[in-house]
Amino acid sequence: MSPRFDPAALSLYHVTDPQLSRPRSVPEVARLAVEGGASMIQVRAKDASGRELLELLEAVVSAVDGAAPVVVDDRVECHLAARARGIACDGVHIGQSDLPPEDARRLCGPEAIIGLSAASQDEIAAAAALPAGTVDYLGIGAVRATATKPDAPQPLGIDGFARARALSALPAVAIGGIRPEDVAGLMAAGADGVAVVSGICAAADPRLAAQTYRREIQR
Amino acid sequence: MSPRFDPAALSLYHVTDPQLSRPRSVPEVARLAVEGGASMIQVRAKDASGRELLELLEAVVSAVDGAAPVVVDDRVECHLAARARGIACDGVHIGQSDLPPEDARRLCGPEAIIGLSAASQDEIAAAAALPAGTVDYLGIGAVRATATKPDAPQPLGIDGFARARALSALPAVAIGGIRPEDVAGLMAAGADGVAVVSGICAAADPRLAAQTYRREIQR
Repeated sequence: MSPRFDPAALSLYHVTDPQLSRPRSVPEVARLAVEGGASMIQVRAKDASGRELLELLEAVVSAVDGAAPVVVDDRVECHLAARARGIACDGVHIGQSDLPPEDARRLCGPEAIIGLSAASQDEIAAAAALPAGTVDYLGIGAVRATATKPDAPQPLGIDGFARARALSALPAVAIGGIRPEDVAGLMAAGADGVAVVSGICAAADPRLAAQTYRREIQR
Repeated sequence: MSPRFDPAALSLYHVTDPQLSRPRSVPEVARLAVEGGASMIQVRAKDASGRELLELLEAVVSAVDGAAPVVVDDRVECHLAARARGIACDGVHIGQSDLPPEDARRLCGPEAIIGLSAASQDEIAAAAALPAGTVDYLGIGAVRATATKPDAPQPLGIDGFARARALSALPAVAIGGIRPEDVAGLMAAGADGVAVVSGICAAADPRLAAQTYRREIQR
């Protein structure tokens, strides 16, 4: 487990989406999100090549400028290449089809923040059974059906999230189509925070959208 | 540059393709290819996730059993994860949209074999301008139009290959729709070898197909 990781960073976790951000750039939206209260950024660009993702990661780290941890989706190699270039990438978020978490931890070292997506009871139980310190947090979802992740499994709903979340003692962020009105229920269900994609980057004003989520979290 | 890399390994370079190998498995075809004279294997599976590619890489390394170097396409992280697991993966082959070669070398260290795809004069000139030791060889093509790489640029033909190959002193393997009858011309044009995808893995008998190419190379 990363000694640098504070689960409070999960409270408002923005996941980037290049398409939904248009015509704004991903780094611009990430900066606005952080100004509005986002506490962590995951650079996700499913259609990007390794080179494009590394460039995007560098641009987001620069735009966020240390105000929130930045992790990269899926590609451990982009985290490693960024670090080797001296870019302050804080870690990687891996899904069930990415490199296994033990391999990711071995490659990234103890300092990196490593998050893992988990949806089913089996996936959460498997994550809970990993050696201590392998992953820093879980991303549990999808809470609601979402267009930004077409391969996502059946939505859990808030009750389903509560049941899933109870299966692991790891810090957990809820993800998937979360609206501001869902936040209170998710926090009551044991979420350490909410991950928001389109709710921020498809908003007319991403900073205002982040502020709206942030207000709900702080209730 | 990898001290373990002998450009003679490029002579008959088989690139895997899961679809074209069916109903045989990729490791089975790789083993047959090596038995027929393939001198190097690139594990490519463009639709595979990181986890699937790592598993496939492990299976191919086991099937080839040290008889030829094995490199993995694109994902530097799979090479690194394999090495960290003690799997004898020899390196990585990167394309123009993958991690930049300098980053790949920095992450993989001096022992790894690193190959780079280059198609245009600009790409070959850029590769030639890299610091010495960054890449071990170039993959130059496509020589002919090919269905296995739908994003490939316009085919070079053998004359185009000869002109492209002359732009760099690096070892170079020709790739893209190469038939046995093309081999003599490509070797005369300065190729250190030929890379073959469908010519081996879509053949009725991959071992016999590899033997046929091998015979042409040894003329």
